[in-house]
Amino acid sequence: MVDLQTIVDEIAAEMAQATERGAVASYIPDLARIDPAHFGIAVIGHDGVSYAAGDADTAFSIQSVSKVFSLTMTLGAVGDALWRRVGREPSGSAFNSIVQLETEQGIPRNPFINAGAIVMCDILLGRYEPREAIAQFLRFVRALAGDDGIVIDHKVAGGEQETGFRNVALANYMRAFGNIQHAVDKVLGIYFHQCALAMNCRQLALAGRFLMNGGRNPATCRSVVSPQRARRILSLMMTCGHYDGSGEFAFRVGLPGKSGVGGGILAIVPGIASIAVWSPGLNERGNSQLGTLALERLVQRTGWSVFEPVVLSAPEG
Amino acid sequence: MVDLQTIVDEIAAEMAQATERGAVASYIPDLARIDPAHFGIAVIGHDGVSYAAGDADTAFSIQSVSKVFSLTMTLGAVGDALWRRVGREPSGSAFNSIVQLETEQGIPRNPFINAGAIVMCDILLGRYEPREAIAQFLRFVRALAGDDGIVIDHKVAGGEQETGFRNVALANYMRAFGNIQHAVDKVLGIYFHQCALAMNCRQLALAGRFLMNGGRNPATCRSVVSPQRARRILSLMMTCGHYDGSGEFAFRVGLPGKSGVGGGILAIVPGIASIAVWSPGLNERGNSQLGTLALERLVQRTGWSVFEPVVLSAPEG
Amino acid sequence: MVDLQTIVDEIAAEMAQATERGAVASYIPDLARIDPAHFGIAVIGHDGVSYAAGDADTAFSIQSVSKVFSLTMTLGAVGDALWRRVGREPSGSAFNSIVQLETEQGIPRNPFINAGAIVMCDILLGRYEPREAIAQFLRFVRALAGDDGIVIDHKVAGGEQETGFRNVALANYMRAFGNIQHAVDKVLGIYFHQCALAMNCRQLALAGRFLMNGGRNPATCRSVVSPQRARRILSLMMTCGHYDGSGEFAFRVGLPGKSGVGGGILAIVPGIASIAVWSPGLNERGNSQLGTLALERLVQRTGWSVFEPVVLSAPEG
Amino acid sequence: MVDLQTIVDEIAAEMAQATERGAVASYIPDLARIDPAHFGIAVIGHDGVSYAAGDADTAFSIQSVSKVFSLTMTLGAVGDALWRRVGREPSGSAFNSIVQLETEQGIPRNPFINAGAIVMCDILLGRYEPREAIAQFLRFVRALAGDDGIVIDHKVAGGEQETGFRNVALANYMRAFGNIQHAVDKVLGIYFHQCALAMNCRQLALAGRFLMNGGRNPATCRSVVSPQRARRILSLMMTCGHYDGSGEFAFRVGLPGKSGVGGGILAIVPGIASIAVWSPGLNERGNSQLGTLALERLVQRTGWSVFEPVVLSAPEG
Repeated sequence: MVDLQTIVDEIAAEMAQATERGAVASYIPDLARIDPAHFGIAVIGHDGVSYAAGDADTAFSIQSVSKVFSLTMTLGAVGDALWRRVGREPSGSAFNSIVQLETEQGIPRNPFINAGAIVMCDILLGRYEPREAIAQFLRFVRALAGDDGIVIDHKVAGGEQETGFRNVALANYMRAFGNIQHAVDKVLGIYFHQCALAMNCRQLALAGRFLMNGGRNPATCRSVVSPQRARRILSLMMTCGHYDGSGEFAFRVGLPGKSGVGGGILAIVPGIASIAVWSPGLNERGNSQLGTLALERLVQRTGWSVFEPVVLSAPEG
Repeated sequence: MVDLQTIVDEIAAEMAQATERGAVASYIPDLARIDPAHFGIAVIGHDGVSYAAGDADTAFSIQSVSKVFSLTMTLGAVGDALWRRVGREPSGSAFNSIVQLETEQGIPRNPFINAGAIVMCDILLGRYEPREAIAQFLRFVRALAGDDGIVIDHKVAGGEQETGFRNVALANYMRAFGNIQHAVDKVLGIYFHQCALAMNCRQLALAGRFLMNGGRNPATCRSVVSPQRARRILSLMMTCGHYDGSGEFAFRVGLPGKSGVGGGILAIVPGIASIAVWSPGLNERGNSQLGTLALERLVQRTGWSVFEPVVLSAPEG
Repeated sequence: MVDLQTIVDEIAAEMAQATERGAVASYIPDLARIDPAHFGIAVIGHDGVSYAAGDADTAFSIQSVSKVFSLTMTLGAVGDALWRRVGREPSGSAFNSIVQLETEQGIPRNPFINAGAIVMCDILLGRYEPREAIAQFLRFVRALAGDDGIVIDHKVAGGEQETGFRNVALANYMRAFGNIQHAVDKVLGIYFHQCALAMNCRQLALAGRFLMNGGRNPATCRSVVSPQRARRILSLMMTCGHYDGSGEFAFRVGLPGKSGVGGGILAIVPGIASIAVWSPGLNERGNSQLGTLALERLVQRTGWSVFEPVVLSAPEG
Repeated sequence: MVDLQTIVDEIAAEMAQATERGAVASYIPDLARIDPAHFGIAVIGHDGVSYAAGDADTAFSIQSVSKVFSLTMTLGAVGDALWRRVGREPSGSAFNSIVQLETEQGIPRNPFINAGAIVMCDILLGRYEPREAIAQFLRFVRALAGDDGIVIDHKVAGGEQETGFRNVALANYMRAFGNIQHAVDKVLGIYFHQCALAMNCRQLALAGRFLMNGGRNPATCRSVVSPQRARRILSLMMTCGHYDGSGEFAFRVGLPGKSGVGGGILAIVPGIASIAVWSPGLNERGNSQLGTLALERLVQRTGWSVFEPVVLSAPEG
């Protein structure tokens, strides 16, 4: 059996050769300057052993991958009351579509589209001052990853100008329906800072371990969420984690995952591995072109799809 | 450990007591007359042992559950060429919505909404005469289930009047975009007959075994589809199998499944079990109210969610 | 003062020089073959004098212009009961859009989009056998124009293949909502024959006289509709007569008008003139490019806009 | 012949008896408190004689009626360049719908929906400081009405909280498409102050005189807009002046008009009269219930519809 380090090395080598790398997101100035040649991958096995290749130690803007942590933190704060204000269905439209909010009276379809994540920020504002909400969030992600070196890139947070207007529109639109209750600039202040979290693949994979592990952080042996809640978060990543490309990602990769416009993807193999990949070029649905391809190949070579009949263990390290 | 027969018996007993049973679909005359008190469940383990309770031997109209078999048969006929004419994304709207077809130029979002299944019938018509297409389909399902007693209820097929008009509209609309190529009445003739397949839970669970088993029918040891194709069909069941309630089903049950307006659901635990449940009352999304609840409880008691970290084996029989 | 014949001659000469002539509708085979060089204009004054130029005596397929006569005939048959099944608002979308029907439960926005005209055919079928409905319609238009030479082009009626599928879709979709009550093929049989009416500009302008004249046919002195109904038909032509280009037509021309994809337009100057223009090339909204331009110039030179402060009389003949 | 004062007196008396008065707009706090019993009407003939009845001298919030003056002023500032940023078609949806902006890339359908009027405020900001833009607008309307007593109700402007969020959403959404270029709070500051203009029927009818009179203010004999532009503004009032009830208003009244949620309507009879009505209760489309009914009766009794064959003169005063 081929060992896992060999597999990730091979994949990184293949990705370095790839010619169709997608297009770097252009609407956030600081992201637009990223070199599309980057590719990184990190895999943390359930035994804690890690396998990495490429630019696995280069930090990038995790953007919407942060919504996984935001959802986890919000469910911790208010539990299933969240679902009175946010739905659980795939959106069938782009990540920043406002149409659905009009037909569904200000209730976002799921927590992984922008509107849903913005509602979660509004919920946090019911508990914390804005500055404290951001600090709590950072502390939470650092604890998940076991790494206090993780920081928020305030330049990115401050510079979300173009996409900013759409998000301001979404927030005000939901406020008109009563589904945003605090001042929009404060709500979005939290949202933009969550999205501006800078992490590398290794840190991101570490932060995802609790989802591989039934809700328990294996490093601390502390429960982050209940096993049922971990499964439910994974189900939402599976059906809604890649915007209007979620069906395609499930079809090709077969794992719950969450992408961000910075080119990162967090994918979870329940009981087996937490995986982070990063490549800044995006496909036409706004998901990392090479990140998706790398995960597709990883799953082919490991048999890690959740739809695989027998997923007994990871390849040997 | 509680044995599986006990679990299905308990669930059947609980469902018999349920008061909120949903509403029986009213738009197909022969379905509207079904007694909502029915509930059946059948589980086939990977070892071939079956566990059943309630009305597991009462035949019902499988309706859209047939789309799983139709997809399998169509992929067998034309392979990935199917995806030039049908998408792979959740629809974000009702099963018979025509809006999406207008904005997406006659390409249905996925093979499990009506429009997608109708395109698959059109593809079959490129290979078979109408009568032969229906006969082939019936033969195919009989072989999957290993049961030649399975029949099409021609009264149901003939009586799809009210919903008929919408489906005629969908088919003609796609024909205007060139995505239906044969006479609409012939295409729909096949479609209505596929939907009118009458099966009981035991037969339906048997027919689903190949999906639990990496594409191979365990009874015949013959490959129905490749392992990759089996995983892909399961991914589509997960993201699109319950219309605009697919996210909710994944959230609550955590298994790939396909529902029909007759009240049946086929759900697959990869490597472990093929499950069929039936209860005619539907929830507001058009999926079996008690069928979903029964599956939710079954998964809670067995730990069979694909998002569960360790799914090593079935409870003992 | 320049006389009216000089004006129409000048306009015809200008149109002959025009280089941007739009695109001939391609989806009806017999229309696609029409030479885009055609241009015709006919004006009938309230005194019955006619002024014509260009191809005013060449017959063309009036297509949706027929909806004016169909609306008149249907209101004569059932009166305001029509408005229970058809709305009176501009559609805000293309002439054959099906989206609006889904959100508004099968009620077309107005009688001048295809869906609305199809409902009117269904209403006629409640009174006449199909063949008789078509014959009555032809007799009605012949009487309005005072010309028994007007015929239906059965080749065009029979050949509406491509657009046919969309119209079949629309009709079946409305039938699913109960807003079509007769067999769709019979309903559409009437619809296609109405659209296939072949008339030249002179005949069309004659047929429109009753609308210029408060509902009374000036040739027969017989009332076709009441003065109030004539005004209401004109108001619908103003707000809905050019599909999703109705606002633009009102802005540029300032007259109630109805266009067809054959390139014809009927426009009415209340109390003053009935005007028909024809040029087969269409603009991007599906309305005659040169027909609109010709009307715009005619109104500029005559001061005939209904929004003109003083519209005392026609220029001298 | 009945004289015009008698007609308006009769109508005011009939409206006082009306029982179905619609519902007062509730989303602007200061409007919600208005007594629905109010009804006022004022008619200014082309000879300058005025006829009024009911609460014709009670000021109300003209809200969206102000968009007529805003359009006039903006066209004066930038001419037809406006049409690169705003369309000219009826919207087919509610006055504050955001859906259309998504499908049409941030270009509002017409200048009379909120989004269109907000773009016009953005254009004014390219010429004036915010305070000056508001002052210029007030000066402009005062000059049209010949009444320096017209004021902006700053309490209403300040209090547009609930609807405010939707308008903030619309403005930010268009800014994301580049169709708003200045700070949203400044743009909306102008918008809310325009809407908060307090005028009575007599003042409003006076302000509309230039539209009855080919663009020239009859009191000053100065041209406000060219005759062509006056006709075009009237055409937009006809096709788009009553939101998604414009077709209905044209059908019933047959005049170009513009309504506001304060219950006011300005209607113009070209060459003959400028009319203002006010009654705060709104119908389900958001237009004044009794205002519309009063205009319908006025037109019936005067024959003033633009679709009337002979509109030679006003009834005698």
